[in-house]
Amino acid sequence: MPRHTLPARYYTDESLFQDELERFYCNSWICAGRTAAIPNAGDYFLRDVGVESIIVVRESSASVRAYFNVCRHRGTRICTANEGRLSGRIQCPYHGWTYGLNGQLIGAPHMDVPGFAHGDYPLHAVAAEVWDGHIFLHLEKSPPPLSDQLADLPVKFANWQMGGLRLHKRIVYEVKANWKLLIQNYNECLHCPLLHPALNQLTEYLGADNEPPADTYIGGSMGFRGSAETMSLCGKRVGEFLPALTDAECKKVCYHAIYPNLLLSLHPDYMMLHTLWPKAVDHTQVICEWHFHPADMDKPGFDGSDAVQFWDQTNLEDWRVVELSQAGIQSRAYTPGPYSPRESLLQAFDQFVLDREREGKGV
Amino acid sequence: MPRHTLPARYYTDESLFQDELERFYCNSWICAGRTAAIPNAGDYFLRDVGVESIIVVRESSASVRAYFNVCRHRGTRICTANEGRLSGRIQCPYHGWTYGLNGQLIGAPHMDVPGFAHGDYPLHAVAAEVWDGHIFLHLEKSPPPLSDQLADLPVKFANWQMGGLRLHKRIVYEVKANWKLLIQNYNECLHCPLLHPALNQLTEYLGADNEPPADTYIGGSMGFRGSAETMSLCGKRVGEFLPALTDAECKKVCYHAIYPNLLLSLHPDYMMLHTLWPKAVDHTQVICEWHFHPADMDKPGFDGSDAVQFWDQTNLEDWRVVELSQAGIQSRAYTPGPYSPRESLLQAFDQFVLDREREGKGV
Amino acid sequence: MPRHTLPARYYTDESLFQDELERFYCNSWICAGRTAAIPNAGDYFLRDVGVESIIVVRESSASVRAYFNVCRHRGTRICTANEGRLSGRIQCPYHGWTYGLNGQLIGAPHMDVPGFAHGDYPLHAVAAEVWDGHIFLHLEKSPPPLSDQLADLPVKFANWQMGGLRLHKRIVYEVKANWKLLIQNYNECLHCPLLHPALNQLTEYLGADNEPPADTYIGGSMGFRGSAETMSLCGKRVGEFLPALTDAECKKVCYHAIYPNLLLSLHPDYMMLHTLWPKAVDHTQVICEWHFHPADMDKPGFDGSDAVQFWDQTNLEDWRVVELSQAGIQSRAYTPGPYSPRESLLQAFDQFVLDREREGKGV
Repeated sequence: MPRHTLPARYYTDESLFQDELERFYCNSWICAGRTAAIPNAGDYFLRDVGVESIIVVRESSASVRAYFNVCRHRGTRICTANEGRLSGRIQCPYHGWTYGLNGQLIGAPHMDVPGFAHGDYPLHAVAAEVWDGHIFLHLEKSPPPLSDQLADLPVKFANWQMGGLRLHKRIVYEVKANWKLLIQNYNECLHCPLLHPALNQLTEYLGADNEPPADTYIGGSMGFRGSAETMSLCGKRVGEFLPALTDAECKKVCYHAIYPNLLLSLHPDYMMLHTLWPKAVDHTQVICEWHFHPADMDKPGFDGSDAVQFWDQTNLEDWRVVELSQAGIQSRAYTPGPYSPRESLLQAFDQFVLDREREGKGV
Repeated sequence: MPRHTLPARYYTDESLFQDELERFYCNSWICAGRTAAIPNAGDYFLRDVGVESIIVVRESSASVRAYFNVCRHRGTRICTANEGRLSGRIQCPYHGWTYGLNGQLIGAPHMDVPGFAHGDYPLHAVAAEVWDGHIFLHLEKSPPPLSDQLADLPVKFANWQMGGLRLHKRIVYEVKANWKLLIQNYNECLHCPLLHPALNQLTEYLGADNEPPADTYIGGSMGFRGSAETMSLCGKRVGEFLPALTDAECKKVCYHAIYPNLLLSLHPDYMMLHTLWPKAVDHTQVICEWHFHPADMDKPGFDGSDAVQFWDQTNLEDWRVVELSQAGIQSRAYTPGPYSPRESLLQAFDQFVLDREREGKGV
Repeated sequence: MPRHTLPARYYTDESLFQDELERFYCNSWICAGRTAAIPNAGDYFLRDVGVESIIVVRESSASVRAYFNVCRHRGTRICTANEGRLSGRIQCPYHGWTYGLNGQLIGAPHMDVPGFAHGDYPLHAVAAEVWDGHIFLHLEKSPPPLSDQLADLPVKFANWQMGGLRLHKRIVYEVKANWKLLIQNYNECLHCPLLHPALNQLTEYLGADNEPPADTYIGGSMGFRGSAETMSLCGKRVGEFLPALTDAECKKVCYHAIYPNLLLSLHPDYMMLHTLWPKAVDHTQVICEWHFHPADMDKPGFDGSDAVQFWDQTNLEDWRVVELSQAGIQSRAYTPGPYSPRESLLQAFDQFVLDREREGKGV
């Protein structure tokens, strides 16, 4: 008997969604952005997780810190611009409470009263760790190290030297579908012939080389068809092969869904990232970024649009169909349907979701 | 003592609304559209009932079928355009599962696995029956025949030969009011002198000839005033008298609210339909259609706009005032108010609503 | 130990908000508008309180009345325009039930049936009382007199002769914040140096002369800096000093938050009013009005824009920052923070909120 898809409540129950948000997004390491976005001390960006706003700031060349964007005085959000540079301190716009980049309260006007100590009111910290340029956050107070969650990924993808790549383009999508439908969509190419005719010309949907599911991620690679060299409108590379890749790594794309929110797509000549930001049981924001090698980007005439447009079109095809799934699963007529062997990674992901629910823990 | 209107909760309680949606719209025959809209095999239209999307499709010259718009593979909505023609098969856009017009699964890529049988995965059927060109749906698995619900209506309205009429115009309205307020508004003309001065010139509001309330519908007829011949801006007929009408039937308009969602307005020369589609406790979509005789419509210079504009104006007057009722009933000061004898059909409808609630069954 | 701000639920819990709406807005005298807005018999305006619509109408030169905007027949809202003049009677647009300005039912078409008496169906009255031109409403049936709630305010502000002032300008703001955050924001100037540089030039934020908190209001006054004469862009008076003010009253602005919804700002030459209208736990409508002396307004070349623009800018600065507080308080990281001595009125207000919650009564 084939394994079947999850019951409808996993895609439609707002209360179960809140539990999942807690379990997978507030109690796991989530990928929040790139160190290259904040090169200098004081540079910061904001990231929303559910109703939370997090300030991710470079404290020093060696240290990235993150804080809840909440003043300890009267709870006001401190930073409002999505990104910017803080001049060595973080000041609340309401009454001027001021914190150092290390989160310590250094100024609190008119609080010279008995029983008040600056040391009692630092910004609430969020754990932050970096893997090869990716900044991960963990909202729990004393999380396990990021390396536990990443397992063998740093070794597996070392040759792409991701930390050295540079952002070329970011597109933000609002998708009216549950976050899990996006992960499931990403992890099978059975839909490619019908939904993605352009993509299907570059890689053979039956040629996916899936790895055995790991505890905290799933994925695999696909070799190119014919003369295709990368995923782009014309199938030709945008730049040189990334410098440390092996010959074998130059001939495929690696697609990995790193639980709970990073879809990492490594091409011979560039890196594409999707991060997922659940907004409601049936709404997910997707931030998609294309990163290239600086040596390519610095060449006169560099043009990444062929890769961007290719995936933008593919993204839109995917978002449309997962929105149709979301709508259909809400029907009283929906019953779990059978997976084919080509959807084996989805079965592993579903099992992961069920296991963590039963265990009551995150990734 | 006069009978009083329903307590506020029947118009404001979202949970009671969900119960009513279940009771009256998912557990009754509801009017969904016209056979003339899908003349050829493969022609279809979609109809939403609450969160459900239903595919209504012509299987053959003799057979109209309806299905939940939900693929049996991963729950995806299959059809997206509101209407169109299917080339003999119904194919899901995601992974290509394919069904015949009879709902049977005829193709499921890569599902050649032990334990999988195509016969186990037909589209989930929705019961569909036809009365004189009106397609009715029933979302329960084994509903009673439509004829039980229609009772004597097919005989009563046989002379209008509704099945032979043709759509001239459709207007869709979004009304911020409970569905029952629309039925109540339709079933009394006590409000006509103040609210509908144009309508009141054509028919005498005190001249309504109401029939004794039936189990599944209420209604009556109104004769014309003076030289009026039909309901239109000028009061003159748009076409010939419908061919099989008796003299008496040529001199009146018949208004019937057929529970739960069809308001059938039969004129000497045309048919107007309102179907009600509850969206929330305080929101109802109304689809209003005008149907004429093909012989009239095929004449050079045919112009139905006089009838359309007359009722469009009247509709808007009605929607505005029922929205005011909806707003007022939400007040803590609202208490049920007394009905006059001119509102006797509303009393019958209210009783119907209360009886079915008590019995826990639909129409 | 400094006193701390309220727990997050007072700003984020929808159910607690509904309780507060009931306690403070439906079970207290609330300021609804000005008698000058309805000078002649039949003049009326509508005021929304939560989901309630209230008709405030002048019955006679001596009497202002208020009614729930709900017809006793079928619950329909009777008046729809926000303000206007009724020709001696109040008629429902649906079936023509008609009431006198005193609320008595005087016409009910076709209700000549046994057991129906016009006297049984007056409009539901809302208590209305007037203080120096301010109309207050109370939604309870037999409220205590307004004078209990106002205490010594009529004496304290008698010299401003508020009843004789005339509306110059009204601006309505929608603020995405809890109503209490607006009252708290109004009652301290600790935020002025950072948030309101223009305002801070006219009054010294450390110079606030707060009165001891009263049972039903809090407030104080601020003297002007340097050559400033009033609060306006240029700091100069818009008109003459209000005629009955003492010298001392000419040299300050009085700011009082009169629970639950009136922020009364008395200037040497004009009056500014904010009334608060909670729409949701995180949404408040603010109606801000500027009233001047008729003698000034009747002078050629009168121009109140300097005062209007000054406060409009200040208002927008305040709304923006309270919206940031609302957003931040929703965070899991929010914990009550410490008040400084400069925020003593806020502590009194918080205590008032807690006391009335414990006692289960309004203002």
